[in-house]
Amino acid sequence: AMDGAPPPTSPAGLSAYVAVSQLLGLTLLATTGAWLGRYRGGVAWHSPLQFNAHPLCMVLGMVFLQGDALLVYRVFRHEAKRSTKALHALLHGLALLIALVGIIAVFESHRTKGIPDMYSLHSWCGMATFVLYLLQWFLGCGFFLFPSASFSLRGWYKPQHIFFGITLFILSIASCLLGITEMLLFKISDSYSHFVPEGILANTLGVLLVAFGLVVGYVLTREEWKRPPLAEELALSMDFKTLTEGESPGGGS
Amino acid sequence: AMDGAPPPTSPAGLSAYVAVSQLLGLTLLATTGAWLGRYRGGVAWHSPLQFNAHPLCMVLGMVFLQGDALLVYRVFRHEAKRSTKALHALLHGLALLIALVGIIAVFESHRTKGIPDMYSLHSWCGMATFVLYLLQWFLGCGFFLFPSASFSLRGWYKPQHIFFGITLFILSIASCLLGITEMLLFKISDSYSHFVPEGILANTLGVLLVAFGLVVGYVLTREEWKRPPLAEELALSMDFKTLTEGESPGGGS
Repeated sequence: AMDGAPPPTSPAGLSAYVAVSQLLGLTLLATTGAWLGRYRGGVAWHSPLQFNAHPLCMVLGMVFLQGDALLVYRVFRHEAKRSTKALHALLHGLALLIALVGIIAVFESHRTKGIPDMYSLHSWCGMATFVLYLLQWFLGCGFFLFPSASFSLRGWYKPQHIFFGITLFILSIASCLLGITEMLLFKISDSYSHFVPEGILANTLGVLLVAFGLVVGYVLTREEWKRPPLAEELALSMDFKTLTEGESPGGGS
Repeated sequence: AMDGAPPPTSPAGLSAYVAVSQLLGLTLLATTGAWLGRYRGGVAWHSPLQFNAHPLCMVLGMVFLQGDALLVYRVFRHEAKRSTKALHALLHGLALLIALVGIIAVFESHRTKGIPDMYSLHSWCGMATFVLYLLQWFLGCGFFLFPSASFSLRGWYKPQHIFFGITLFILSIASCLLGITEMLLFKISDSYSHFVPEGILANTLGVLLVAFGLVVGYVLTREEWKRPPLAEELALSMDFKTLTEGESPGGGS
């Protein structure tokens, strides 16, 4: 906030929805931990438990951190755009790193146990999502963070970045649901249909993943909750308009 | 189109994307049919093949027809709103009926074979999606099709209807992916990891489902492709504004 001005307020409801999303996110992590800890022997790297690092890293990186990176423009709506962008890129970068660790965990665990890689629908969806997410991160940095792309090129790319960003978040959650189903049918195929506690817990994790995606998606797509441009951004955009004689900058990210 | 006026045109690109979506939709149905016909013995009702009616009905109803129902406002952008709405409701109604047949198919097949119901993540997600889809259909009819809701109540509900409509479409596709994974691990768990043709075909069906959702989602969310109000709708909305002294009708569906 500028000096002397009253602190700007957030729209009613937004804070409540964001709080619910964070509670759901933490519950996601706790539920994943409970499943792995209570029923799957816990998590360790150089051990037969290495596989268990996979679900934990993917839920933390590809769902919780990716979701929070998307929310950054709604939560820090009155901060300077440049710092909010940096945080957005940083959170996605952290998510990518943690997801990479999770991917290494499956490949190493498969190699140790002699299980083939990349044959299942879960692996196809998950790997495609990760590779496209990495690509989207590089494109985002190239267009918006480093001053390489022209104003009008950014204006063209911005809606694509947003559409594919939300799509990749949805695909990440779908890949997690597929992973949960695979793991249950590999580990407890005999007892799953008898409503054993592990099956109920893992199904609940799936429902929580959907709920997290739903709340984050609602916050992101609600028109009134979009980040308003700051006064100085509007001035800059106006200067630019005068400079280019009437070309529309299209929101000018 | 009104008498004498030149026929209105669609935005460049929209027709191409809609054509691709329909090609993908038909390919979806053909791939589902090929999987069931070539590897699962085909589809029949009063027989051990009754289960196979489930995937066919769900892909046809909950994905292809539901997706096309969502596209109706983009495709018939210059028709009267009332007839477009009726078609939207009709296609969703047909989707619901076909999905209901698909759901009956699993329950009857489970009863015959002595398999428990509703224990898997696929069944939880799928059933929740179907029930909420039915609810959304009734709400949509009540708010928009029959002249019961006030203009301002419609304006409030419209963005909710759109958000949950797209959400239910995404959840339908996610439920199909879970169903594919379940079916493969039930039927070919021993050979799936050896990249057998049935596994590749069913995985490809999953990828096609995602592609269909992606193209439909892109058409729906692209700002320039939204249905513009007809001249007479604008006039009506203006009359209403004068009547209620400045209340914003919010798009007035």
